[in-house]
Amino acid sequence: MRRGTDRAVYDIDTMKAVLDAGLVAHVGISTDEGPVVLPMAYGRTDDTILLHGAAANALLKNATGTEVCVTVTIVDGLVIARAAFHNSMNYRSVVIRGLATKVEGDDKVEALQIITDHVVRNWDTGRPSTDAEIRKTLVVSVPLTEMSAKIRGGDPIDDDADLDGPHWSGTIPLDRVWGAPESAADLHEGIEVRTEIRALEGRSVN
Amino acid sequence: MRRGTDRAVYDIDTMKAVLDAGLVAHVGISTDEGPVVLPMAYGRTDDTILLHGAAANALLKNATGTEVCVTVTIVDGLVIARAAFHNSMNYRSVVIRGLATKVEGDDKVEALQIITDHVVRNWDTGRPSTDAEIRKTLVVSVPLTEMSAKIRGGDPIDDDADLDGPHWSGTIPLDRVWGAPESAADLHEGIEVRTEIRALEGRSVN
Repeated sequence: MRRGTDRAVYDIDTMKAVLDAGLVAHVGISTDEGPVVLPMAYGRTDDTILLHGAAANALLKNATGTEVCVTVTIVDGLVIARAAFHNSMNYRSVVIRGLATKVEGDDKVEALQIITDHVVRNWDTGRPSTDAEIRKTLVVSVPLTEMSAKIRGGDPIDDDADLDGPHWSGTIPLDRVWGAPESAADLHEGIEVRTEIRALEGRSVN
Repeated sequence: MRRGTDRAVYDIDTMKAVLDAGLVAHVGISTDEGPVVLPMAYGRTDDTILLHGAAANALLKNATGTEVCVTVTIVDGLVIARAAFHNSMNYRSVVIRGLATKVEGDDKVEALQIITDHVVRNWDTGRPSTDAEIRKTLVVSVPLTEMSAKIRGGDPIDDDADLDGPHWSGTIPLDRVWGAPESAADLHEGIEVRTEIRALEGRSVN
């Protein structure tokens, strides 16, 4: 893709791929004192996005049973046009609006696994959560029914009148790259990081 | 910093440094159909955060004169604890809540320069904006008066009972790295990218 594209209509698989590539969601609620937007870890199923936090988490508690907006954005680079007016960013963003519903019982345990797998993919090898830990966690789901995306890629789109001007035009890609795993200071000697986690080093988040 | 830290009280310079390191803000407004959160480019002055969009931008138009929430988050890595319950992320996040006010006249021209400089730092060498372009742009400011931060860094914080377990514990840093500038397909030969932009290649966004 060279000529810049900036569209707002995407099929659901494209939107799910953006959710899978994102790391945090920005979750918005309306309160009597105005809107609040906080970053949160998340996971997704085929038809919902799942959020979790401490049971005392004020935003999630207030969100439950109300309309929320969950937005996931990945910045892919800078778009530098000949004219400042056409400067932009290349990015992928998905916006989900809907009712946040508390997740309970077996669905809650499954939801926590999905969220953990989305973020760090080590649920299966860490020490499993206890019932008390699960009780201390609040999980809500929002349906993917009202979901939209905006994705921009490719070159700047300059005015024709500027094409023969003296200014450079192009893009600066921005990559998200995993570093080397760093063992905790209190880790006992002889415990190695999992192969899959070590293999992340130098790899990009796509 | 090794032992994990997760605090919520920071001095204003620390919070401004997070704003300076961020690339997009997630801007939330309350509407009759629930909250809306969208990513936007931004800039900051000593006492405001500045947002801009097309004059027809529905979110910004609705935001003007109302309470908004502007959140900037940088993910610095994954925190993998011995227990899934203590998994987390290292991140820096700033939340600003306040009244969005339209910026006009000379202040608007200055605001556009600040926003452009925050994002791509080429205002001075691109073709300057025309009056018509400036009219087509809406700029709003939100005071930094009601600003808070949450910053997590360092190791996982496991339960003492898990410290002698068999599970790995540590962090996976995530770096944001600039790639090589890519000239637009319609750029005439002989126009080189500015030295400062080429120098970004391989450098991290801090």
